[in-house]
Amino acid sequence: MSDISFADALLSPRSIALVGASGDVRKNTARPLRFMRKHGYAGAVYPINPGRAEILGEQAYPSLAGLPGPVDHVFVMIPGGEAAGVLEQCAQAGARVVTVYSDGFGETGPEGLARQTALVAQARKLGLRLLGPNSIGCANLHTGGILSVNAAFEADTLLAGDISLVSQSGSMMGSLLSRAAARGFGFAKSVSVGNESDITVGEVVDALVDDPQSKAILLFLETLRDAATLGQALTRARAAGKPVIAYKLGRSEQGDALAQSHTGAMAGNDVAVDAFLKAYGVMRVRNLETLFELAPLAARHARNDSLRRAPDQPARVAVITTTGGGAATVVDNLGLHGMAAVAPPADFVRRIAEKGLRIRETPVIDLTLAASSAQYKMLLEHLLRADWCDAVLSVVGSSAQFHPGLAVKPLLEADKPADKPLAVFLAPEAPESLALLRAGGIAAFRTPEACADALAAFFAADGRPPASGAAYAWPAALPRSGMLSEHEAGALFRSLGVPVARGELADPATLAHAVPYPVVAKVCSRDLAHKTELGAVRVGIADGDALRAAASEMLENVRRGAPGAQVDGILVQPMETRLIEMILGYRHDPLVGPTVLLGAGGIAAELSPDYAVRLAPVNEEEARRMILEVRQTRLICGFRGLPPGDRDALARAIAAFSRLACAAGVRVEEAEINPLFVRADGVVAVDGLARLA
Amino acid sequence: MSDISFADALLSPRSIALVGASGDVRKNTARPLRFMRKHGYAGAVYPINPGRAEILGEQAYPSLAGLPGPVDHVFVMIPGGEAAGVLEQCAQAGARVVTVYSDGFGETGPEGLARQTALVAQARKLGLRLLGPNSIGCANLHTGGILSVNAAFEADTLLAGDISLVSQSGSMMGSLLSRAAARGFGFAKSVSVGNESDITVGEVVDALVDDPQSKAILLFLETLRDAATLGQALTRARAAGKPVIAYKLGRSEQGDALAQSHTGAMAGNDVAVDAFLKAYGVMRVRNLETLFELAPLAARHARNDSLRRAPDQPARVAVITTTGGGAATVVDNLGLHGMAAVAPPADFVRRIAEKGLRIRETPVIDLTLAASSAQYKMLLEHLLRADWCDAVLSVVGSSAQFHPGLAVKPLLEADKPADKPLAVFLAPEAPESLALLRAGGIAAFRTPEACADALAAFFAADGRPPASGAAYAWPAALPRSGMLSEHEAGALFRSLGVPVARGELADPATLAHAVPYPVVAKVCSRDLAHKTELGAVRVGIADGDALRAAASEMLENVRRGAPGAQVDGILVQPMETRLIEMILGYRHDPLVGPTVLLGAGGIAAELSPDYAVRLAPVNEEEARRMILEVRQTRLICGFRGLPPGDRDALARAIAAFSRLACAAGVRVEEAEINPLFVRADGVVAVDGLARLA
Repeated sequence: MSDISFADALLSPRSIALVGASGDVRKNTARPLRFMRKHGYAGAVYPINPGRAEILGEQAYPSLAGLPGPVDHVFVMIPGGEAAGVLEQCAQAGARVVTVYSDGFGETGPEGLARQTALVAQARKLGLRLLGPNSIGCANLHTGGILSVNAAFEADTLLAGDISLVSQSGSMMGSLLSRAAARGFGFAKSVSVGNESDITVGEVVDALVDDPQSKAILLFLETLRDAATLGQALTRARAAGKPVIAYKLGRSEQGDALAQSHTGAMAGNDVAVDAFLKAYGVMRVRNLETLFELAPLAARHARNDSLRRAPDQPARVAVITTTGGGAATVVDNLGLHGMAAVAPPADFVRRIAEKGLRIRETPVIDLTLAASSAQYKMLLEHLLRADWCDAVLSVVGSSAQFHPGLAVKPLLEADKPADKPLAVFLAPEAPESLALLRAGGIAAFRTPEACADALAAFFAADGRPPASGAAYAWPAALPRSGMLSEHEAGALFRSLGVPVARGELADPATLAHAVPYPVVAKVCSRDLAHKTELGAVRVGIADGDALRAAASEMLENVRRGAPGAQVDGILVQPMETRLIEMILGYRHDPLVGPTVLLGAGGIAAELSPDYAVRLAPVNEEEARRMILEVRQTRLICGFRGLPPGDRDALARAIAAFSRLACAAGVRVEEAEINPLFVRADGVVAVDGLARLA
Repeated sequence: MSDISFADALLSPRSIALVGASGDVRKNTARPLRFMRKHGYAGAVYPINPGRAEILGEQAYPSLAGLPGPVDHVFVMIPGGEAAGVLEQCAQAGARVVTVYSDGFGETGPEGLARQTALVAQARKLGLRLLGPNSIGCANLHTGGILSVNAAFEADTLLAGDISLVSQSGSMMGSLLSRAAARGFGFAKSVSVGNESDITVGEVVDALVDDPQSKAILLFLETLRDAATLGQALTRARAAGKPVIAYKLGRSEQGDALAQSHTGAMAGNDVAVDAFLKAYGVMRVRNLETLFELAPLAARHARNDSLRRAPDQPARVAVITTTGGGAATVVDNLGLHGMAAVAPPADFVRRIAEKGLRIRETPVIDLTLAASSAQYKMLLEHLLRADWCDAVLSVVGSSAQFHPGLAVKPLLEADKPADKPLAVFLAPEAPESLALLRAGGIAAFRTPEACADALAAFFAADGRPPASGAAYAWPAALPRSGMLSEHEAGALFRSLGVPVARGELADPATLAHAVPYPVVAKVCSRDLAHKTELGAVRVGIADGDALRAAASEMLENVRRGAPGAQVDGILVQPMETRLIEMILGYRHDPLVGPTVLLGAGGIAAELSPDYAVRLAPVNEEEARRMILEVRQTRLICGFRGLPPGDRDALARAIAAFSRLACAAGVRVEEAEINPLFVRADGVVAVDGLARLA
């Protein structure tokens, strides 16, 4: 194997072999050689085709054996079934990375998946790393090293730039490149991971963190296949000040299902992935083109830590405009994303007046026909240094279309500090102004929707990875696998520090207990998930006689409704009071791992989503942010004069519960406290369950 | 006055005078003459400027008096204070319409508003109609008759086309024209209404309905100033098969406030305006560019009546694509808008297979590398005739960029029936394909967001104007103005046919009543709006003694908390039971008039919006649609095995209550039933209020 690093072999190979290269220019497989010649790749390229001595005027080779020099990266374009047959030769030729364009693998079903697994195993054994299969390839736009059949590289000139793209969709890689190029956005590297059988998105991101030509990293995601690796890479990106911007499919249920199915990935869960991306500071955009339009802003302000507002305060955007209607189109969207245009305070207005410009204390500073270019620049510089706003938005009217140079002059020339982002929206069609701003490194947006989306994504990505919790010793008395009974789950939660309703497990025969009446009684069994529906719960039991009657009825219900259920006893609990009831959930998400959820309780809450999700464990500070995110908690925060609930206790309970993620030697698959009663003085878990791996 | 119609004078004047025309090409006021010469206006143009005999090489006139011929339309560009001074001459010159560009009127405050009111009054007296003031003008792109200073007309060639724009924002008129032009969308007429002091949006729409060159009407709205006129015009547009598409600011609270303030309009209410637009079949888009991108689809399918699905079913979109990722970006957004990509049923798949094309029963039909152009066309034609989908979406991949002709060929050539809309999204940057589709009259979208937005707007606009209710005779015993007491409001609602809790107004001294215990007791007074907060309501009163004690306490509370309140008595009601509680609201909205609201009741419902609003009155069918829109009603529709509520009775109550809009001779400003209890057998209004004008 050659001495090249994995990252260089993947992104900047010095020599490339094209297995299955065709001389028929109509074929996809003729493209990579053509692309590389067109775009000036200076390294060695070896077309491999047993049937031809010459391809597109260059010498072709019958196989990877006996090439005149070593190869860093092989691009395989032969039928999927034959791909395995060339791996050994790849290794012998010195390759470190093999990109497999061939399809017919995991994306086709179980049989293809088996073929893919075998391919990866063979590659590993040979010390090769595999990109794909079913990858449309990867490209280095600075060297012209294009191992890709993507038509996007057909363009006569490729714009080399400082953003890089990792895509789980091959065709969207091309679509994004073409859209960005039309706007003057050049790329450094572009990688399609295909079926992601070996080299994952996380590894590519990791390589890009070390790539000096990549200033911002863009992700087009359908799912997550290796969250752990990606999490580490994102942490490194953040430390290196490289922003990561993601467009991820799956915001709607059908979109989620679709994004999963078409690459054969496992069932998705966008909510958990969203929590993952947020935790690692990824700016997730909702509009496709925001993905690259946000890059200049993100690259300048990769970390927005310094901009942190109180968690329940909307981001404040100072808006200057030369078109009232144009500004309103963005501000309206800012409002929909929970941000606010903010009026300059009186002393700021006074200060600007002293400089000779009269502005008003309105949420949009309208400068139509009111300011010279120098005054605009002066105001902009003051806004970019003002402590009453978190970002500045400039909306430009018709001048952007008819006098581009003039219109963008103050924006380009203003002295822009590092800590306050500036976004620009051009109301008319104004490609020249967009290009000038792009060239000047200023984030400019084509549509009001993308502009607001960008600011929302920027402010949402505050990057607080899961707390690092000390390992939690599993209570010796509890099982270490399978379903826990409610009583056992209660003991588990109590051991973590969550207050649990004082329940006693009574023998069904005697029903002896010391809980003061009135009580709640439930049949306790690890085999019963839906006790209420089964008639295995009774509340408001007044005395021992009533308890005996209730127990006998409930046991009869269970015998009829769940004949096989093993009954541990009758769980007797005191009647608890509450201000509101919530749900605390824990799930080992198949994509991102441990997650904790705080949600509104009660049946009405099921009608509209009202929850906050985080990677677990969380500390109490993060738990408080979760509380603020759930609308129902407003009922215990003085809403309409209602009595306040104990939010500190709730935060403690969330943090404690989330430490299920730290259980040593036991994997909790899912756990739920439902309901968790929140009172004026404390919280109490009234019912719960836990399922272990 | 000349013999020209109002519509022609406004939109297609034969002769134009430009009052305040300047010969200084740097000035805005020099533009209209320049624009008209540039774009070949063939009518007479008279520049009016007392200081110059010649302007831009043409004869200028000192005043409107003594022009060589009559004038249809005068464009006034002199300072606002002087505008009134020329009106009389306008009338004498034969003008029917005067467009006032001058500012300094209603948009500046009370003083300007007074000046505006006087200007309009004077114009009316003279038989003139006024566009503006503060209007950037209007343009006929077919004749080159451009009475506008908008820089958008600076373009060397203006694309004349078949869509027309009415804008409440002058600068956005230009922005939209430039954006549309860049996409090959030509306009017929373009009108900025400015302060809308006389000629309103509705009147312009009305004129455009009769304009044979206008096939679709676009609105850029900040507010509504004359809903009645607009409603009539929209009804005519609908009858004429001319679609109306609107972008309206104010979806967010701040956006709403902003859109209002900057034109000095009255406090807005986007929810009511939205109900208005929906009722009249307007397609309201959320993305700015969707406004014109939707036009080809809307023009072909102005009325989607024939596509009506069951009201609780999402619109079903058949999706064909040559890029899985690209299709997923749209489908994800379809899902967010409540639409669904729908898989072809087995028999359809079989039928297509018989024609030689294998497709799968998946929600996205992926044809990547799988279909010839002829097969694509064949499939498309079958989809456009299939009864299992409401629209067809075609997503095109890289071929749209590199082989535009080929890529769009099947879309252009397919035989497209009138009743099934076709939308196209091009995943890469593909301006040529966009232009070809535009030229072929096919709706093609630049972004996945706009594409989904367009289909959502199309399906949401089903156009059911308020029911025409027979006049309702006001009960003789009730006041005809001011606030009603709860007891009186109850009588009012009962007279409309809404079941109201059987309440008796007891004399505070005797407390005699015939309501069986337990009862609810309330202090009845038209002066108490917030009885609960005041301690003027007691529930669960067991007997006469308890009632006496409660009444005395409540009266004491009222004496202390609302000393001036006149007490009519103690309202005694039976304790009512319920499955859920809802709110029924009625409001004479200042912008759109009578509206009725059905909302979720209870304090938790206040945390997240859960309501449906319609123009009033509504019939029972429409009421049933409202019920389906409110999430909370799922609790009485079999959700989680809960007992079903009486939705028929609820629909009857909504329809009856909405007839407050039909009260003869009495104007109800607002009324509310809160709570309205919904039971298994009927509904009952438990508390209510009404305020009359």
